[in-house]
Amino acid sequence: MTETLGQGERPAVYTWDPNSNSGKPLFVLNEKGVDFDYRYISLPDFEQHAPEYVAINPDGTVPALVHRGRVFAESTPMCEYIDKAFDGPSLTPDEPEARYRMRDRCRRTDKAAESLSVIGWHLHLGPMVRSKSPEELARLIARIPTQERRISWETASKATFSEAQLADARRRVGDYVKELEADLAHGLWLVGDEYSLADILTFANFYALPAGYPEFATDGYAPRVLDWLRRIYARPATAKTFNMARSIARRAFGIAANLGCPMMELAHA
Amino acid sequence: MTETLGQGERPAVYTWDPNSNSGKPLFVLNEKGVDFDYRYISLPDFEQHAPEYVAINPDGTVPALVHRGRVFAESTPMCEYIDKAFDGPSLTPDEPEARYRMRDRCRRTDKAAESLSVIGWHLHLGPMVRSKSPEELARLIARIPTQERRISWETASKATFSEAQLADARRRVGDYVKELEADLAHGLWLVGDEYSLADILTFANFYALPAGYPEFATDGYAPRVLDWLRRIYARPATAKTFNMARSIARRAFGIAANLGCPMMELAHA
Repeated sequence: MTETLGQGERPAVYTWDPNSNSGKPLFVLNEKGVDFDYRYISLPDFEQHAPEYVAINPDGTVPALVHRGRVFAESTPMCEYIDKAFDGPSLTPDEPEARYRMRDRCRRTDKAAESLSVIGWHLHLGPMVRSKSPEELARLIARIPTQERRISWETASKATFSEAQLADARRRVGDYVKELEADLAHGLWLVGDEYSLADILTFANFYALPAGYPEFATDGYAPRVLDWLRRIYARPATAKTFNMARSIARRAFGIAANLGCPMMELAHA
Repeated sequence: MTETLGQGERPAVYTWDPNSNSGKPLFVLNEKGVDFDYRYISLPDFEQHAPEYVAINPDGTVPALVHRGRVFAESTPMCEYIDKAFDGPSLTPDEPEARYRMRDRCRRTDKAAESLSVIGWHLHLGPMVRSKSPEELARLIARIPTQERRISWETASKATFSEAQLADARRRVGDYVKELEADLAHGLWLVGDEYSLADILTFANFYALPAGYPEFATDGYAPRVLDWLRRIYARPATAKTFNMARSIARRAFGIAANLGCPMMELAHA
């Protein structure tokens, strides 16, 4: 990470796997057909708090985009920036009311992602973090830049959720899937007739629905959402993005195959 | 509320006073010079849960904008819609990086507004609600459309915050004022050289800073923020909007006078 990336026209993305917020700019850049440098930041290894990275993004969060020497650290507005600043197909509808609905959907997805992250922590990230030795964990937490975030990571690293909390998070996810299902009654995509940031940012959070929430990924519960997932898995930019995955998002290949739309998995460099 | 407003080109806004989220579309429409119908919904009287209003906005929240028969219920994207759908001066910078910073600032302000609302509930809304008789309060809560929101309002109507919670909220407000102060080192407005939605939406939340948080509204703590407040209070659209206030936001006239930029207060119709 000692090179200076993203100072000119070629953007650089510092992020983890194409998974939830970490994946958003990767999907969007690939959909636009923009070449970029990808610097992998491993969340379960707390690399987002490494001094070299904090020098780039003082927030110590991923993803971060660097373009023309500017740092963009908030993932949803970052994707609007990518859509506007680079050539390639527009991912924002032109009509003001459709734009409103796109932004409203992105906000609702960000809210729903809080419930997903409860389950994601329980199933994936929490066990990855707890598999470290207490000494290693203490060392990683000690270098977190602010006291406030040190305390919250210290709490999170030990946290386990109650059954009631997990059940509540699952219920909210199910309610949100129903909300997406209702939107998809009006067309192939979440907003109007065009693939937009609303689809991409929601997919970045929900691509693993069939794996993590099989009860909601059925033709009885949400048939339109399943077809919408298949349409997105079939896009070349989606396969290209998942081929960049090194960790949790490799599960996407199995999920796509089970949905009947396998993606070509390339040998990793 | 039996007329059908907002079905054509003339928009209708259903909202409380120009205060926090409730005020955002009022400030923006007046800044654009757009004529609109204003239907007053009294938050301390729970009018947002009245069946006539829920028929318009099923979320039972304010503000709601109705335009060409469409309902817009999320205040920040609603203001982007207003800026794009109506004539008048643009309140969004054209340059993509400035747009990003405008949206990032709006998101951060929305987050900071959570701390403001803790104090606002403690000082204003909570006492207004608790001044009702228990019977009246029970009746108002019973008509809230969803069980989830009934429970949260029932809890809120009795809630008092601890000294530690209030102190934490005040500290966060102070930190955010410092963040605004840093932005204003680069120019007269929060983003670049033009008055934008970032200024308006932040002002809608912070116009009463000198009244509620005198410790942060000093030339020692945040001189640029004070001057920025003065510049916004001096705008004709600001005085026009506060003249629409009926309740809490009438305090703006005293605040502006104390800041040395009194607004003309018109006799109320």
